[in-house]
Amino acid sequence: MATIEPRNLKGFRDFLPQAAIRRQNVIASIIKTYERFGFVPLETPALEYADVLMGKYGEEGEKLLYRFRDQGDREVALRYDLTVPLARVVAQYPELSKPFRRYQIAPVWRAENTQKGRFREFTQCDIDIVGTSSMLADAEIAQVMAAALANLGFSNFQIRINNRKLLNGILEAARVPENQWLATLRSLDKWGKIRAKGVEEELSGFLSEKITSAFIALLPKETEDFSSWSERTIEMISATTNGVEGIKELNKVMTSLAGIGMPEGTFQGDVLLARGLDYYTGTIFEAALTDTPEIGSVYGGGRYDKLIGQFIGKDIPAVGTSAGVDRILAAMEELGMGIPRSSTADVLVCMMGEELAAETSKLANELRTAGINTETWYEPDKLDKQLKYADKQGIPFVVLFGSDEKEQGMVTVKDLRTKKQEQTRKDFCIQTIQNLLQKEQ
Amino acid sequence: MATIEPRNLKGFRDFLPQAAIRRQNVIASIIKTYERFGFVPLETPALEYADVLMGKYGEEGEKLLYRFRDQGDREVALRYDLTVPLARVVAQYPELSKPFRRYQIAPVWRAENTQKGRFREFTQCDIDIVGTSSMLADAEIAQVMAAALANLGFSNFQIRINNRKLLNGILEAARVPENQWLATLRSLDKWGKIRAKGVEEELSGFLSEKITSAFIALLPKETEDFSSWSERTIEMISATTNGVEGIKELNKVMTSLAGIGMPEGTFQGDVLLARGLDYYTGTIFEAALTDTPEIGSVYGGGRYDKLIGQFIGKDIPAVGTSAGVDRILAAMEELGMGIPRSSTADVLVCMMGEELAAETSKLANELRTAGINTETWYEPDKLDKQLKYADKQGIPFVVLFGSDEKEQGMVTVKDLRTKKQEQTRKDFCIQTIQNLLQKEQ
Repeated sequence: MATIEPRNLKGFRDFLPQAAIRRQNVIASIIKTYERFGFVPLETPALEYADVLMGKYGEEGEKLLYRFRDQGDREVALRYDLTVPLARVVAQYPELSKPFRRYQIAPVWRAENTQKGRFREFTQCDIDIVGTSSMLADAEIAQVMAAALANLGFSNFQIRINNRKLLNGILEAARVPENQWLATLRSLDKWGKIRAKGVEEELSGFLSEKITSAFIALLPKETEDFSSWSERTIEMISATTNGVEGIKELNKVMTSLAGIGMPEGTFQGDVLLARGLDYYTGTIFEAALTDTPEIGSVYGGGRYDKLIGQFIGKDIPAVGTSAGVDRILAAMEELGMGIPRSSTADVLVCMMGEELAAETSKLANELRTAGINTETWYEPDKLDKQLKYADKQGIPFVVLFGSDEKEQGMVTVKDLRTKKQEQTRKDFCIQTIQNLLQKEQ
Repeated sequence: MATIEPRNLKGFRDFLPQAAIRRQNVIASIIKTYERFGFVPLETPALEYADVLMGKYGEEGEKLLYRFRDQGDREVALRYDLTVPLARVVAQYPELSKPFRRYQIAPVWRAENTQKGRFREFTQCDIDIVGTSSMLADAEIAQVMAAALANLGFSNFQIRINNRKLLNGILEAARVPENQWLATLRSLDKWGKIRAKGVEEELSGFLSEKITSAFIALLPKETEDFSSWSERTIEMISATTNGVEGIKELNKVMTSLAGIGMPEGTFQGDVLLARGLDYYTGTIFEAALTDTPEIGSVYGGGRYDKLIGQFIGKDIPAVGTSAGVDRILAAMEELGMGIPRSSTADVLVCMMGEELAAETSKLANELRTAGINTETWYEPDKLDKQLKYADKQGIPFVVLFGSDEKEQGMVTVKDLRTKKQEQTRKDFCIQTIQNLLQKEQ
């Protein structure tokens, strides 16, 4: 028989148990934080009508959509993010109470260039607050990012905050033509990599020399605090409607975070932060881990007050953020954080003879009823093989119940890491293991 | 601006918060049971090379695959189940320890006829044991099904068990041509709906009259226990190699379940159970809830010793089962079980004035630090609006901290269900709410 080569599509990954356990732990921690702030779960389909997703991500983004015609000849696409599906849901169910504060943790699909180390299927962890323009909501999103990272065990991170209106004020003050605003911001977004010189070079490709230098002149010299801008810049931005609003909003978010008591170094205004997506209209955020700068931002988001209006013709304000599980896991690995066992079981009850199978299974069930995660062995293999398996899986304890033990009403409990073993009365087996597990913690 | 109609694809669903919370609770309970038996998680991609999935589900199944060409002109398909991806993984990573006992809980996609009330995206909860032919593994799968249903709170369910080899023995004894075996089994699978008469009618469409009656004559009269078969039937089946092995295997599973102490009525041999999928080779199972018979089976599975061999040319035995979350939820709804709040928050801290926003947020953070899920309000709206929101969301408690309270160093805690409220010192707020929440449980 011809066989089929078992293989993955490029950019798609299997998570074998140890990796899957790590991912589950990270996601469980993030969910706990989101629920601590009262966010509620939402689930949306993987497939959407293509027109629901089109026109939201910019030309470059749109090319990455997995689009096809289904059996009913409908044009469909796999979701590209969780924000546009949320906007669709809010438009579709006007009965949802506002503010609608939802989280969604789910895979998204983008036909990215895998040579850049990008994946085509990856998991996003989103929170959004829909139905309020209050900057307290923007501040809360920043606060949840900080809490999620802290609860994951990261002690050093920084949230950079900017505002698209403020950036629009700069664009206006520098007289950048409005149809070049998004392109200019996309260049500015690369500042971290290509610095002022690179941005200037890119801009001079589509802006006049005069406008390019006017724009660059309005930016802070390097990544400086928002408050350290030159008075002249603030003055010029303040002459634009966009700029006035942007400064006011950014100030409000920063003041609110300080008022709540967010530690100083953890958040910072940063006018060089632009973010690539088209749909942002106000506050924008990014969070990065200061101990692993090369990993880039682990959270990104912002306010998008016009997106839901694309479905119902009436704007509903919204703000949110999205964490990338892969980057968080990469950082944890680099920092040696939270490496779990590759097993969910605490105990393997070995099989010491087929005639003892029923009693072995019963013993295992007693352990399970007592809340101890327990595996059994199915075949009368040599004990050595069973112990090797348990060791390789990272199962800490094995229980031996052979004919000798049976005769004496005893079991042997062995700790595979210390190689110590003890005999105990069969009816004390649960307690013995519970004691050993408690010592673990 | 032209708007885009917000809508779902037919057969695809949004789960709004209350429904999503219910689903999460069910899935969390199932995971807990699976881990109690030491199963470990595996995650595989939504998209696979189409040839990995083809030739596994029968002609009818294959038509339901969502197939398309991706940007790299690869023929790809959304996964149809979690079993074939598992078989691929086992073939692809020979380093995985055996027995490999994994669970996977994830959506699958099938372009089903939605008029039959079927969904095109639905979540499966699978466990499988790969790498052992021992019938103890088959018995364990049945045991985990029973434990999962019991832990979800179902008290009445029945697991029906059969064996494809035994069925093959019947087919052989009735002299059904081997190329009609699968078709015959697919008809037999409908016994529950169309009864003996219907099956006979279907069979006579492609089998001779003589063979049809020989086959029907070998079946028990109605759904009878395996052990109650006529001696003549057993004798005839026992004259075939398939039948001998099938009877032996089924006996072993039944004896083992009895030996472990599975309560009698919860499992039953049932020779009329056939299951539609092509890849089963031995034991097959189905579990149904006896209080909601119209919902059909909530678990289905079996042994598939030849599937992994399709990838590597060398057979690796495997057995497993899959739960349908939708049917479990439908049954719970019908039986009035486990209806959760539509909120994750325990408390809403109201906003009693914009000047108190920072202090309100700080108070909310103190509650969160104490492990209490807490929302805040973002705008200085009328209290009535805030209370209505909390009530509609099912948030049990609100905390009021207005200028009066501030002056006195107090807060007001109100239970929205009893309408009772009490004043307490601000620094006792956490304890007051913890006490109220404890009373809840």
